Amino acid sequence: MSMVKLIEYADAMPEVKAVYDDLMATRGCGLDGINNFWKALASHPPTLARIWQDVKRVMAPGELDPLVKELIYVAVSVTNNCEYCIHSHAAAARAKGMTDGQFGELLAVVGLANQTNRLANGYRIPVDARFRPFPD
Amino acid sequence: MSMVKLIEYADAMPEVKAVYDDLMATRGCGLDGINNFWKALASHPPTLARIWQDVKRVMAPGELDPLVKELIYVAVSVTNNCEYCIHSHAAAARAKGMTDGQFGELLAVVGLANQTNRLANGYRIPVDARFRPFPD
Amino acid sequence: MSMVKLIEYADAMPEVKAVYDDLMATRGCGLDGINNFWKALASHPPTLARIWQDVKRVMAPGELDPLVKELIYVAVSVTNNCEYCIHSHAAAARAKGMTDGQFGELLAVVGLANQTNRLANGYRIPVDARFRPFPD
Amino acid sequence: MSMVKLIEYADAMPEVKAVYDDLMATRGCGLDGINNFWKALASHPPTLARIWQDVKRVMAPGELDPLVKELIYVAVSVTNNCEYCIHSHAAAARAKGMTDGQFGELLAVVGLANQTNRLANGYRIPVDARFRPFPD
Amino acid sequence: MSMVKLIEYADAMPEVKAVYDDLMATRGCGLDGINNFWKALASHPPTLARIWQDVKRVMAPGELDPLVKELIYVAVSVTNNCEYCIHSHAAAARAKGMTDGQFGELLAVVGLANQTNRLANGYRIPVDARFRPFPD
Amino acid sequence: MSMVKLIEYADAMPEVKAVYDDLMATRGCGLDGINNFWKALASHPPTLARIWQDVKRVMAPGELDPLVKELIYVAVSVTNNCEYCIHSHAAAARAKGMTDGQFGELLAVVGLANQTNRLANGYRIPVDARFRPFPD
Repeated sequence: MSMVKLIEYADAMPEVKAVYDDLMATRGCGLDGINNFWKALASHPPTLARIWQDVKRVMAPGELDPLVKELIYVAVSVTNNCEYCIHSHAAAARAKGMTDGQFGELLAVVGLANQTNRLANGYRIPVDARFRPFPD
Repeated sequence: MSMVKLIEYADAMPEVKAVYDDLMATRGCGLDGINNFWKALASHPPTLARIWQDVKRVMAPGELDPLVKELIYVAVSVTNNCEYCIHSHAAAARAKGMTDGQFGELLAVVGLANQTNRLANGYRIPVDARFRPFPD
Repeated sequence: MSMVKLIEYADAMPEVKAVYDDLMATRGCGLDGINNFWKALASHPPTLARIWQDVKRVMAPGELDPLVKELIYVAVSVTNNCEYCIHSHAAAARAKGMTDGQFGELLAVVGLANQTNRLANGYRIPVDARFRPFPD
Repeated sequence: MSMVKLIEYADAMPEVKAVYDDLMATRGCGLDGINNFWKALASHPPTLARIWQDVKRVMAPGELDPLVKELIYVAVSVTNNCEYCIHSHAAAARAKGMTDGQFGELLAVVGLANQTNRLANGYRIPVDARFRPFPD
Repeated sequence: MSMVKLIEYADAMPEVKAVYDDLMATRGCGLDGINNFWKALASHPPTLARIWQDVKRVMAPGELDPLVKELIYVAVSVTNNCEYCIHSHAAAARAKGMTDGQFGELLAVVGLANQTNRLANGYRIPVDARFRPFPD
Repeated sequence: MSMVKLIEYADAMPEVKAVYDDLMATRGCGLDGINNFWKALASHPPTLARIWQDVKRVMAPGELDPLVKELIYVAVSVTNNCEYCIHSHAAAARAKGMTDGQFGELLAVVGLANQTNRLANGYRIPVDARFRPFPD
């Protein structure tokens, strides 16, 4: 029940093909590595190109390692209930070495944080002065 | 503008003092280590005791290291806009070694995930069969 | 830091005064019973009139008693982190008899539900057939 | 499309069986009373044990009656769009006596609160001094 | 897997029929123009009547044109992940002239706003004085 | 209570100055046109550069006019309760011609959509076949 037609490589316009080619080169994969997320974004080529640049830059190894970035991605996706992103980023995390036990701990932290977020917001708890990185 | 009176140690009932004592023993801190979150939860002692047990268990070292757990906590808190939890868990992450660069990357991933969550939900993108851990 | 000027009774247009009059008559209160929510909505009179009708109808006694309706209102407002609504509906609940202990239990349920919502969404748990009120 | 294998009683490890046994004893039900939520959490036994303790304590009769607690649970689950929790807690509420009319009123309050939450947040309405339980 | 039975015109009580008749007259459509949203709300006639009045008033042409209102509706529905509302209001927007390119730009803005909302909330950025419409 | 130090032009590193310069050139403004959002993002230069590129591209005139894009931005920001973004994008919308009446209608649509999103999700209403742009 996609809102748009998924664009396959063979049917893609040149600027879409260019993104698909860069994605395959970057990830070292073939056409089957182009998942539905990109095929749907291809319905609006400027969005496809922009998001691919964003993902390539943000998810690259940096001061946080790639697996930790995927765990954070799953945490946000679970909080927002994005079915697609939960599946795709959990798969990416597993491919980067996430164990079953780590997945269980990840969801435990996500659940707990969602609980205490509401307790802190519901009780309207004032932030302790010592937590503020700067004086106001 | 807290909804409840913050309970100081000196004014606390025995079951609240017992939690405060365990918290100080677990964290190796003094009375100034009891932050406002606990003082607010102390207005309802069963919640204080329950949440303290939850936090102690879930945030303990496991297959994920404690810093990664704090990063996940911040990611959820930012997504939910919990001011208290952003401040308290970012402080905890810094205490466990989070660098400024890691904090920058953390927020970048959180921002990107919130963006792509809506693209995936908005386009109603079907999950690729290869991402599913089990056949339906 | 309101986005709009709060409209006091003395400065109000006739259609705004009509809502304020009906609100005071319905609640048996004076001008000080017109809280800031209504004074802000008065910046757009059709919204003021519409929302007042909605609130009057939905929050009236029905098969759920008015206190239970206020507890539900607070539960939603905490989940969405609406500071104004948490304060105004918690005050309304206290006025209808909510005890400190009930407030504590309310937040405990809200926190727990926010936690298990993410566990159920994160694990993508299929709904048990026996929970469905209708066969698909 | 669960992220984890659902664990049946016959296949469960001892600490999972212990939770299942306590759940059946507490609820006075048989194996068919162990719904998918618990079978999915059983993939991470510490989460199963912790959440079961949480649910048992928080949802027990207290100053709020069990039906009211279920209504609050449904209100949060609808706000967060947790399909599983809407179904399971609406079923629990019906089992505790929720009428069709009460369900209709519940959703009406949830819808209204979600509407006015955004009006209050969007207009950035300052909280009336009289609503604050404590002077700042 | 609806929570309630969808009410067809032939089976409807008089107050439900009255809303259906007004909806068909307002929209210039036949029975097939009564979509499932209304048939589900008909399970609680006061909600059906109230929401129909709300929709009729709020979505009528005003200072914003009807297509812009539908785009805003889709933006909110995508942010909240309401599958039903995304489909029904995207269909309404297309019927009012939304092009494929406009839909692509709409989702791009929605995605970007969800990203920067979290950056602004995560960094706890103070609002510039010049953005405030009123001095505090 | 910002989480990071706001970076003024005079204190900025070259890659931050480059973004500030491009922002001033694009918007035809001086240093006072660099609002706190950018000064906070400057704490992590890759995020500053990336988000500025995103904003420049997505918010440029296209098939949707710039005012409509700002209205959509405000709608998302209100739904997510991002105080900073509500203020900054409402100011941008006013600068592009948004009237008080349009702001009132915008919030009315946002409020209504948040209400009906929960009714549709709460009743689990099946999507009408005629709304789907593609057969499944």
